[in-house]
Parts: sequence; C-alpha cells; structure tokens
Amino acid sequence: MKKRQILKAENIVPYFKGFEVIGAFNPAVAKCGGKTVMLVRVAERPVQKDENYFLVPEYDERSGLNIIRLDKSSGKYDFSDCRVVKNSHKNYLTSLSYFLIAESEDGLDFRITDRRILPEGPDEEYGIEDPRITEIDGVYYITYSAISDCGINTKLMVTSDFQTFERKGVIFYADNKDVVIFPHKIGDKYYALHRPSTSQFAKPDMWIAESPDLRHWGGYRVLLRSDEDGNERVGAGAVPVLTKEGWLEIFHAADENNCYKLYAMIMNKDDPEKIEARGTVPLIEVTEDFEKNGFFKNVVFTCGMIAEGEKVRIYYGTCDTNVAMAELSLGEIYENVR
Amino acid sequence: MKKRQILKAENIVPYFKGFEVIGAFNPAVAKCGGKTVMLVRVAERPVQKDENYFLVPEYDERSGLNIIRLDKSSGKYDFSDCRVVKNSHKNYLTSLSYFLIAESEDGLDFRITDRRILPEGPDEEYGIEDPRITEIDGVYYITYSAISDCGINTKLMVTSDFQTFERKGVIFYADNKDVVIFPHKIGDKYYALHRPSTSQFAKPDMWIAESPDLRHWGGYRVLLRSDEDGNERVGAGAVPVLTKEGWLEIFHAADENNCYKLYAMIMNKDDPEKIEARGTVPLIEVTEDFEKNGFFKNVVFTCGMIAEGEKVRIYYGTCDTNVAMAELSLGEIYENVR
Repeated sequence: MKKRQILKAENIVPYFKGFEVIGAFNPAVAKCGGKTVMLVRVAERPVQKDENYFLVPEYDERSGLNIIRLDKSSGKYDFSDCRVVKNSHKNYLTSLSYFLIAESEDGLDFRITDRRILPEGPDEEYGIEDPRITEIDGVYYITYSAISDCGINTKLMVTSDFQTFERKGVIFYADNKDVVIFPHKIGDKYYALHRPSTSQFAKPDMWIAESPDLRHWGGYRVLLRSDEDGNERVGAGAVPVLTKEGWLEIFHAADENNCYKLYAMIMNKDDPEKIEARGTVPLIEVTEDFEKNGFFKNVVFTCGMIAEGEKVRIYYGTCDTNVAMAELSLGEIYENVR
Repeated sequence: MKKRQILKAENIVPYFKGFEVIGAFNPAVAKCGGKTVMLVRVAERPVQKDENYFLVPEYDERSGLNIIRLDKSSGKYDFSDCRVVKNSHKNYLTSLSYFLIAESEDGLDFRITDRRILPEGPDEEYGIEDPRITEIDGVYYITYSAISDCGINTKLMVTSDFQTFERKGVIFYADNKDVVIFPHKIGDKYYALHRPSTSQFAKPDMWIAESPDLRHWGGYRVLLRSDEDGNERVGAGAVPVLTKEGWLEIFHAADENNCYKLYAMIMNKDDPEKIEARGTVPLIEVTEDFEKNGFFKNVVFTCGMIAEGEKVRIYYGTCDTNVAMAELSLGEIYENVR
C-alpha cells in the first residue's frame, strides 16, 4: 500500500471575506467524462480578532453569511472541543463547510475549479459536510450531512455533469450521517448504509436500509456494532464497489480517544445484509505525520474510492485538514479481510 | 369537557411471575366491529426483594424473560430516574412494557381480555411502548416504540381483527417515537407525524414524513418546534382525525419540569405540512388528582381519540399509571385553537 498527500488546505483561497480555510478534506470522488472528479469539503472559520469574543459562522438563506459573537467571559459556553462550541441550549460549529470541486486526469494531480456548492436553506445553516457520490445509470447521487438547528440530517443532491446540482431534500432524518448508497439495485431494491446517532441505549453503529426509489427508505437494521471491535462508533466510509467476492466497503471506526482507523469488509453480492468477511485489523491506520497532526489529530476518514481492475485508490481526509490517497490492490484487501 | 378515569393499573394482574404491575396507560384506541378496542401499555417490574441489588427486566427472544441484578453499592449506576437506570455504558429500563387488549361496547366500560402482545426479537428486548392505531381500508396499522440496545425504534404491526398481529419491522429508525400515521392518503402519499431525538443542535421537535407504501418513508421536515411555546419537547399524540376544518391533531408538550400538557392543532386538509390553527393554551392540563399523582407525576399523554359526529373522546395515560378519557365537542376544540 502506498499513501500520498493529494490536496492541502493551505492551497485553498478562502471564499468568505474575513475567513480562513482550516480544512480541505473528506472528499467524495467519482469518474465523469474520463476525469476523476472530487467534491472536497472545505471548512472556513472567521479570523478571530477580538480576545473577548469567539466568532462562529452561520449561513442564512436570506442574509447570507452571519457572524455570531459569543462572549467568552459569560461562562455560558464550553470551548474545549475545537470543532463545536457547546452550551446548555444550543451548540455552534466553529467552522462552516461547503463543497469545492476539483478535477484530475490521472487521479493524482487535482486542479481546483471555481465551482462550489454552498449551503442553502434553513436546514444547512451550519454547513454541509462529508459528501459521497454514487453513480447510477449516468446520474450522480450525492448524499451529504446538512447541519442546522434541525440537527444533523442527511440530504440528497443530484447532478449529471458536476456543473448544476439539484437538491432533493432530507432522506435520513436527524441525527444521521455517513450515508452511502449502493451503485445499483440489488433484486428490486436500492440499498444504503447509514449511521443514526441514538441518544440512549445504543452507540453509533452502522445500519443498512432499503428503498424502492432512492427517496423513501425503510427496512432498517443494525449491520455492524461499534463495540464488536471495542470501538466507540463505526460508520460507512466509501461508496461500496462490487467485486468478484461481493460488495467491498471501506469504513471508519473510532475508539474512546477519537483515534480513527479504516477497515474493510465484504458484503454478500445478492444480500448486502450478510457480511461475508471483515478485517479485524485496520486496513489503514494513522502512521504518517500528515495523519497524526492537523486540526483534529489522528483522523483518517474516507468518503470514496475508485476501483479499476485490480487497483483500488482510497481517497481520505486526514485530521479534518487535508486529502490523502492510499493505493493498493484488491488482493491486498482480500488478504486483510480473511 | 368532562374527564374520567377509565382503567386502573391496580386492577391488572401481572403476567410475569415475581413481577408487579406499575402502570396500565398510554392506550391506542380504534373502532372494530362496533366495539372500541384499546391496546393498553402495561408496565411490569420485578418485585424488589434484595436491598443490595436493583432488579431490571429484559425480554430475550430465546430464553424469554431475564432479570438483571445491578449492584447498588458498585457506584456504577444512577438510580435517580424511576423510569431508567443509567450508567456510562448502557441504560436499563426499570420496567418492561407490553400491550394488553381491552374492549368496550360504549367506550366507557372496558373489559380486559387475556390477549397480549409481548415483546419479540432483539430490537424489543426492553419492551414495547405507546402504540397508535390507524385504520386504513379495514386494516389496522399499529405504530409502537420498540426499546433495545438498538435504541428507540418505531416499528409497524398490522392486524385486521385484533386477534392476530403481523410485525412489519422498523419504519422509523432510532431514536424516534411518537409516530402517528394519517388514516388515508393525501394526494398520492401517506403521511405520518414523528419525533426524532437528535443528539446535538436540536431539541425533540415534531416532524412530518411521507410515504408511497407505509413501509418506506421520506420527505422529512420539521413541522412544529418545541421551543415555540417554551417547551423542552413536543410530540404527536392521537392519530389525526379529518374534520371539516382540516386534520385535527391532539399532541403533547413537556416543559423543563417534565410537566405534560395536551394541545390541539388543525393541519390543512390537502397539505398537512401547513398548520392552519393551533391552540396556544393547553386543551388538557394537569388539574385532577389522578393526573397529578402516580408513578411519574404530572403526565397527561394521549395515543388516540375517537371522533363521532360532534363528540370527541380523547383517551390518555395519566402519570404513566392509569387511563383516563376526556369527552368534549369539536366546537370546544375549534374554540381552543382560534
């Protein structure tokens, strides 16, 4: 396996005035017209200028970008997590995310375009995050997390050319993230992996769901429990790819120290609710300096892979900061899950 | 409005050996063959005999009922809530709920039958709760909360005679409760109200959803926010009834002291996402002694009503203990929402 860095946040120019880019990470990938297209999650935050106030962003449908000033001395806010400011009534994200489109001829050198997908509407007011692209019959279905005071919903967006995008609303209600749609029907149903965040009784586990039309979902079941390998949470990562062994899925797990790992599993070709094989050791672990250090340390998080013949390229975000890619063979993955 | 008590937990004989009935409450109601049928949620708990251990129940598919002994002196458990024992890894309900069927000729005097719906399968291991019955074309669709270490899921069960019941699986994944299905299609879609429990950013609000087939759901939107009237949470109650003014819904709200109230609202006949009128003062408040005192104080909670002509009977649980009924006219309700 060969790991390399693909895209760095420091090379992205901020879109919002008075903001800085803190991350360009967790990209969705797809092949379109011979190119590899990437939807990169870009996170920007207000440059903090006043030591008495902490500034958090909010994207409002009518007025565009708002900056909310939180009084540091009020004692009302918990600033201990760099990603979110908590208080008893309302949480705020410290950055606002949107998607930036990058393209590549070879899947290695990416050209950043000026095309962006910005948050839109009240259920995206704290940003849009962690996209996944599934191509079905020439149409690209993009699932993404939409954050707002309606919670963390997963919404659907559709494109055929990565120029114009049509939003299709919420398909997995709050809180639910890490939704990946399988690239074709199995039997007469579409399938998706997803991760509800339950508030009691259960941990964040990986679930499966089915749909007749990609818009209405049901048949919900827990597919993989986070505590099976001693993890605190587990969620789908890359959009599954059909291989000769079955559906290949690369997913993430995080332990109680928020250290992320990527695992591989194979689901039955005709019945994805059956896990045929699963790696008990991580396929990708935090080993490189760029996987260890960044905005949020020790994170490897994938939203997509490209499999061509025997070659698999797993694109992944590192430390909520940059984009890396691991290249390996199907044989290496089969070896890992046995 | 006239309130009266309909059913008392003290008159129910425990089903499980060594258990006591602590509540018979939150009933679903429907008309079937001229009778009023009630699915009463019965909660039973182990009789506590050993002062060193607290006993909690669990219903296991293979072995039936299990009793789990929690060491009171371990310091690992929080016993401060009479409904749930909390610890850092896993919560336990202090009682196990199932449904008991009661029938009445006049909707006032109910005969308790020996027919019960017991928990079944791994996603019901901590019990089944708060049923709602929607009759569509002679088929009764029962939504209910299923509690387990898969979280709080809402499942669907179907019957045509209240003798045999067929489970149809999870229709709203965890955590989601207070699901009521509208009694016929509006346009070409079925609708339901529901209440996801989000873990961050949002409070428990009332949402709406749509479905082509009652099994797969989508089109999720927030319908009514809990904080609009200063409440901590809000959820659908009775199955909606179509009146000449629109869809009548009786729902609950609870404030920060866990004091429950029932409100009325009217949704547009052709577009239930539009709230046409809503009471800003409660329709039913805690006023009677039987609404004030019981297992969990100050609770009025409805799962169903019967509307015939101008007369509306709202059946509701009181204090997670007994069943009461409020009889009033449609005119009184219209007055409340104006």
